[in-house]
Amino acid sequence: MKSENRKMLVSTLAQMGEMAKMASYELAASSADDRNSCLSNMADTLVKESAYIETENKKDVADARKKGLSKAMVDRLMLDSGRIREMADTLRAMAKLDDPLGKTLSSCIRPNGLRIDKVSVPIGVIGIVYEARPNVTVDAAALCLKAGNAVLLRGGSEAINTNIALAHCINRACTASGLPHGTVQLLPWTDRQAVEILLGLDQYIDLIIPRGGESLIRTVVELSRIPVIKHYKGVCHAYIDSECDLGMAERIVVNAKCQRPGVCNAIEKILIHKAIARRAVPRLAKALEGEGVEIRGDSSFRKLHPKCKPASESDWSEEYLDLIIAAKIVPDLASAIEHINRYGSHHSETIVTGVAENAEQFLNKVDSAAVYWNASTRFTDGGQFGMGAEIGISTDKLHARGPMGLTELTTYKYRIYGSGQCRE
Amino acid sequence: MKSENRKMLVSTLAQMGEMAKMASYELAASSADDRNSCLSNMADTLVKESAYIETENKKDVADARKKGLSKAMVDRLMLDSGRIREMADTLRAMAKLDDPLGKTLSSCIRPNGLRIDKVSVPIGVIGIVYEARPNVTVDAAALCLKAGNAVLLRGGSEAINTNIALAHCINRACTASGLPHGTVQLLPWTDRQAVEILLGLDQYIDLIIPRGGESLIRTVVELSRIPVIKHYKGVCHAYIDSECDLGMAERIVVNAKCQRPGVCNAIEKILIHKAIARRAVPRLAKALEGEGVEIRGDSSFRKLHPKCKPASESDWSEEYLDLIIAAKIVPDLASAIEHINRYGSHHSETIVTGVAENAEQFLNKVDSAAVYWNASTRFTDGGQFGMGAEIGISTDKLHARGPMGLTELTTYKYRIYGSGQCRE
Repeated sequence: MKSENRKMLVSTLAQMGEMAKMASYELAASSADDRNSCLSNMADTLVKESAYIETENKKDVADARKKGLSKAMVDRLMLDSGRIREMADTLRAMAKLDDPLGKTLSSCIRPNGLRIDKVSVPIGVIGIVYEARPNVTVDAAALCLKAGNAVLLRGGSEAINTNIALAHCINRACTASGLPHGTVQLLPWTDRQAVEILLGLDQYIDLIIPRGGESLIRTVVELSRIPVIKHYKGVCHAYIDSECDLGMAERIVVNAKCQRPGVCNAIEKILIHKAIARRAVPRLAKALEGEGVEIRGDSSFRKLHPKCKPASESDWSEEYLDLIIAAKIVPDLASAIEHINRYGSHHSETIVTGVAENAEQFLNKVDSAAVYWNASTRFTDGGQFGMGAEIGISTDKLHARGPMGLTELTTYKYRIYGSGQCRE
Repeated sequence: MKSENRKMLVSTLAQMGEMAKMASYELAASSADDRNSCLSNMADTLVKESAYIETENKKDVADARKKGLSKAMVDRLMLDSGRIREMADTLRAMAKLDDPLGKTLSSCIRPNGLRIDKVSVPIGVIGIVYEARPNVTVDAAALCLKAGNAVLLRGGSEAINTNIALAHCINRACTASGLPHGTVQLLPWTDRQAVEILLGLDQYIDLIIPRGGESLIRTVVELSRIPVIKHYKGVCHAYIDSECDLGMAERIVVNAKCQRPGVCNAIEKILIHKAIARRAVPRLAKALEGEGVEIRGDSSFRKLHPKCKPASESDWSEEYLDLIIAAKIVPDLASAIEHINRYGSHHSETIVTGVAENAEQFLNKVDSAAVYWNASTRFTDGGQFGMGAEIGISTDKLHARGPMGLTELTTYKYRIYGSGQCRE
């Protein structure tokens, strides 16, 4: 792109950023009723404009087929009236969730009579950078808005016609509900240059949430001057302790690996205590291989299950997102914890044990967003956690960790009520 | 520095980082008693080693005088037995504060029987980058440690001998209390290269807290690949609403400007509603000028107080840290809020008003960490907020905002208790 064009893009994006910032101050003072009725309006508009959205979507699908995108990719991209109705249902359910704003997180009255309330408030302006799933356009915009944030959306080029149609419906609903102009804005540019400029607008945008694969997330983190909440990958572990119910271990391992192997909360590694290995290895191997899982074992594991492939050093930190698992025998609980902290991605881990003391140690010392005792890691999910909705999962420690719902789209401020107090 | 030396420094710092990380896992599982007894041990050690610390401090003071540092700088650097006793008292008081770890922030039992606890845990490894105040070495290390974090300290070159002596005492106390090796580590290098390398160790360090002037903080943010919690400056406002007690307004404005003008929570600007300007301007101007404050007014303000200097555009965003204030007449509350959000630093602002509705609007729409109704902004401070201790003040929204005490040195994780639950 020529430098003239770049200048124009910088100035247009800065204007969008400023408009979002201005909208965010209005939204911070908006009522939950207004925000909820906007979500219901969005749902109605999507259903009413179904035909228009489908027409635009057909253009994207045709382009995708012309470009030779995979069947799975084309399927993700495609919207029909059924899928649009599902989006609308999600919006209506979201409208019914508790308002996350204005919650008094703590409150005190100081000896001088000052009342200090710590109250939840929106984060401000949130930028969402994502790939080809058009449902993210609606879901992410709605979640951010429910939590009182203005949103800048930058979706993938494959879904651009669909996204413009969806954003059009969203904006009609915002206007009808009296929410400020600039509440939800979609970037019509899908090239890398626009993302780069967006990620530099730290004077207007408070937070970036990337949604997509590891390479998209790495690019966003690399380029962003704005804080990013994210997880790169989920290298999740199951540790089978020396004293445990092997039937439970088998059910948990099979569920955590096989129920949906392509997601970040599926396990990628099993660690087995050496005292139970002789009984556990054949049983777990049989169950996993019965589900079509390829096992890659360390040398001790392979002594007990010689037909499996050997694991290499890089296997311990790899996220397969497939029916593959790496397995290792460990001498004790401490080694299991050390292995997980060293090679894991600080996402979700589980210990299967009958010994409460060992479970406590695992829960205390494993430095992950979610640590389980006797359950599958597949529950790390906003819906499963009872959050009602999820914008993503974070392995960051500042400020959100684990599944991020509405509360995680807020921050807080201190509101202080005085009667003339001055400091001595 | 030669590239050989740089390589060595990189490898040594990485080793320090890894040691801190390992220590942080142990600390996460340490008891509050151990951490508190370590703080008491530190206090005892500092008092016992007073003579040694003073000897080392004298070297720094002599160097500082030789270099021609200002009297104020030399005074900040100097330690005597009284100041060392004060440090020890602070540590003993800190030992008595509530433990911020292991607090259940929320808890639920899901329909499938899973119990999900959201529990406060340490952040992990915290790096402190600061200037010449040796008391930061003790305060910051102790606060981080009380919250279960390992610490890497990088102080200014002016205090290096003192800091090494203090770190020596801190480490003796850690060892005596059975805390892991690597809990507190001081970098003996005070050049820029060491900071640059430190700020790149994102695999080991979870958070950087810079303590010092705006230029130090900007440098740290620029260079860091690790999240930084900070505030650049405090451009705080007092807004005098149309209907208010002018006596209260005068007391608050004078206190917020003059009680300690060199700190970040002092006000730098006054905005006055036009309906009260005729009565407010002469009174406030007299009171401020009586305290030696230079006023810089906008044109409307100067019509009512012609002898004051004119304010220029840059005055609205400048932090004077001195007996100077900029003053402006605004047509209404909305303009005051817009001005503050546009030019302020999102730190602390106050409205003086008798109208609850106006106060609510101000508290809702002003996007600052602390917003006051009828009180001085000088209360934005961990001690004044009842936190017992403060590591700094943040104008960030992720994750800490406002005064940061022990709780703000923690994050959370989810601990999930099952009985074999698998996901369907």
